[in-house]
Amino acid sequence: MIIGNDYGHGGDVYKNRIRIDFSANVNPYGTPEAVKKAIAESSERVDIYPDPYCTELRKKLSEHTGAPEDNIVCGNGAAELIFQFTEALKPGKTLLPVPSFSEYESALKAYGREAVLYPLARENGFALTEDILGHITEDTDLVMLCNPNNPTGQPIEPKLLFKILSKCRETGTWLFLDECFISLCEEGKCSSLLPQLRKGDRVFLLNAFTKLYGMAGVRLGYGICLEDEMLKKMCSSVQPWNVSTPAQAAGCAALSCREWTEETRNMIFEEKKYLLSELDALGVKHIAGVSNFIMLLGVPGLYGKMLEKGVLIRSCANYHGLEEGDCRIAVKTHEENEELIKVLREVLGK
Amino acid sequence: MIIGNDYGHGGDVYKNRIRIDFSANVNPYGTPEAVKKAIAESSERVDIYPDPYCTELRKKLSEHTGAPEDNIVCGNGAAELIFQFTEALKPGKTLLPVPSFSEYESALKAYGREAVLYPLARENGFALTEDILGHITEDTDLVMLCNPNNPTGQPIEPKLLFKILSKCRETGTWLFLDECFISLCEEGKCSSLLPQLRKGDRVFLLNAFTKLYGMAGVRLGYGICLEDEMLKKMCSSVQPWNVSTPAQAAGCAALSCREWTEETRNMIFEEKKYLLSELDALGVKHIAGVSNFIMLLGVPGLYGKMLEKGVLIRSCANYHGLEEGDCRIAVKTHEENEELIKVLREVLGK
Repeated sequence: MIIGNDYGHGGDVYKNRIRIDFSANVNPYGTPEAVKKAIAESSERVDIYPDPYCTELRKKLSEHTGAPEDNIVCGNGAAELIFQFTEALKPGKTLLPVPSFSEYESALKAYGREAVLYPLARENGFALTEDILGHITEDTDLVMLCNPNNPTGQPIEPKLLFKILSKCRETGTWLFLDECFISLCEEGKCSSLLPQLRKGDRVFLLNAFTKLYGMAGVRLGYGICLEDEMLKKMCSSVQPWNVSTPAQAAGCAALSCREWTEETRNMIFEEKKYLLSELDALGVKHIAGVSNFIMLLGVPGLYGKMLEKGVLIRSCANYHGLEEGDCRIAVKTHEENEELIKVLREVLGK
Repeated sequence: MIIGNDYGHGGDVYKNRIRIDFSANVNPYGTPEAVKKAIAESSERVDIYPDPYCTELRKKLSEHTGAPEDNIVCGNGAAELIFQFTEALKPGKTLLPVPSFSEYESALKAYGREAVLYPLARENGFALTEDILGHITEDTDLVMLCNPNNPTGQPIEPKLLFKILSKCRETGTWLFLDECFISLCEEGKCSSLLPQLRKGDRVFLLNAFTKLYGMAGVRLGYGICLEDEMLKKMCSSVQPWNVSTPAQAAGCAALSCREWTEETRNMIFEEKKYLLSELDALGVKHIAGVSNFIMLLGVPGLYGKMLEKGVLIRSCANYHGLEEGDCRIAVKTHEENEELIKVLREVLGK
C-alpha cells in the first residue's frame, strides 16, 4: 500500500470521482462467473492458512503452459514478482528500454539498483529495434522487457526477440520478460518466448491473471523460469503465505474457463477497430499496438479535461520519454467506448 | 510461496493427511459470518485494482486502535510487514530473544542481516526478564520481541516492557514488537504498548486479523508506527496493490464484529482450563502462557505419534532453544480438545 500521494498508475478510482475508468487495462467484460464463485466459496475456508506451495494452482498452470511445476512461481500479483526477482538477482547494470511499466524501475530503486535507461524513439512509435542488441554486453546483468510493451502496446518482433535471447545467452545476461498482456493481444500478433527456452536459460517470464480474467483485486501473478536456483532465491525472500486462499481458488477456476479467452478477446478487438476508426475520424494521433489498449499522442490537457467530465484516462506524463498530452486508454465495452468518443469529441471541440 | 520442502511452520494441512489441525493458532470458532459475506461480496468488484491507500480500512483501524490513520500501514498478512520492516531498516546489530516466531530471523537472513540470538532460559519457562536490558546498548539497532511470545505464550510483564521502551529510547534502538496474539489473550494478562508511545518513537507494533478473526487465508496484517519516515520507507519497497480487495473488505467487516472477540475469547479460555487440567492429569509438562495455545515440554516422539493418528500438532524442534519433544498445541473447540486428549492418552499409553 501507499502512504502519501505518489501512486502514479492507472486505475485509481479511489481518489477520483469518475463515471468511467479507461485508465486500467483490465478485460472490460469483468471477471468470469466461475472465478467469482470460487472466491465466494473460498470464504468458507479462510480460517486455514493458504497452501504455501500453491500445489493445485501450479499443477494447473503447468498443464496450461507446458512448463514444469517446479519452474513456476506464484505471487501476490505480478507486481510482487517484479520486486522478488529484482531482490533475488541484485543486478548490477540493468538495461531498461523506456517508456515501459514503471514498477521495474521502482523495484530496482527499492533495492538500490541503478537502471541504464534505453530511450525508444517516438518517431518509430517507441518500437524496440535491433539497435538494442549492441547494448547487451558482457557487463549487462539484466534486461527488462515488456511484450507487448505497456503503455505503447508495441510487440517485440519474434525474430528480434529470439536475437535478444541469443545475445543474452552469449553474454550471460538475465532477461526479465513481462508477458502480462500477451493473453490479451490480437491473435497471432504477439507470442510467448516460452517455446524457445531451454533448461538453465537465464530468463524470467512474468504473467498475471489480472488483465484477461478481470482479477486485479485478487492479486495473482506467476513467473516461469527454467533456471532453478533463481526461483529458490526468490522464495527465500518472501513470506510463505503470500498467495491468498481466494487468489489460489480464483486462479484455478480461471484456468478452467476455456471459452472466456476467445469470447472476450473477439469482442475486445471488434471494439478496438471501432475506437481506432473514431480516433482517425477525430484526427487524434495514436499508436494502435496489438493489445487491449491504445496510446493517444500529443493532446495537451486531455487528461484533465476528460477527468472534469468524469472519464478517467491514463496520463502518461510520468513515463520516461513521454509527455503531458500522451495518454493511454483501455478498450472497453461498446457503450463505454461510445461515451469515451462522445466526451473526446466535446473536449476537442469537434 | 515455497519451492521445495522447507516450510517449517504450523498449519501445513496440505502436505499432511490429518483429521484435526492443532498446529495453527487460529480462532477455533472460525471466521465471523459477516467477514465471509464481505469476502464473497467483494468477488463482484475484483476486476478493479485494490485501493492502494487502504483508505476505508485504515480509517476503521484508526477508530479501533486510536492511532492516527497516517501512522497505520496494512500488509499482505503480518508476515509481509516483517519483511518490509526489515528491508526498510536494514538493521546492523539485531537482538533476537529465542525461542520466538521464526519469520523474524528469516526476514533478517533474506536481507543479509545477522541476528544476535538471546537465549531465554528453559528453567524460567522462557520468560523475558530484566536481564535483557543490559543487552540493549548504543550499538543495538533493533530488538525484535513478540508479546505474548510464540510459541511459549509468555507475556512480557508491563513494567519490564516499559523499561525496554525507555532503554530503546536512550540508546536510539528500534523496537519491533509483534502483538499479533494480544487480541487472543486472557483478559488483562497482556496489553499493547500503544498507549505508552509518543510521536517519533522508534517502535513498530505488528498486528494481524489472522488469529482472532480466523482470516489466515485472506492475508491481512497491519502495523502502527509513530515515526513517519519508517512507514514511507516501508511503502517504497513494495508494490502499491499488496493488500487485496477481499482482504480489505474482510478487515473492514471484522472490525465491525464487536461481539465476536468477547464471545469467542470466553469460550477459548474455558476450553484452555479444560486442556490444562487434562494435561496435568496426564502428567504432561507444559507452559500455559496467556494466549490461545499451550506449549508441551519434553515428550520425545510426540509429534510423529500424534500425526500417525491424524492429529497435527506443532513440533517445535526447529526453534532455537527448543528440542524434539517440545510441541505447541492450539486451544480448539471442546469436541476437538476431547479428541486431542483421547489421542494423547493413547499415545502416552495412559
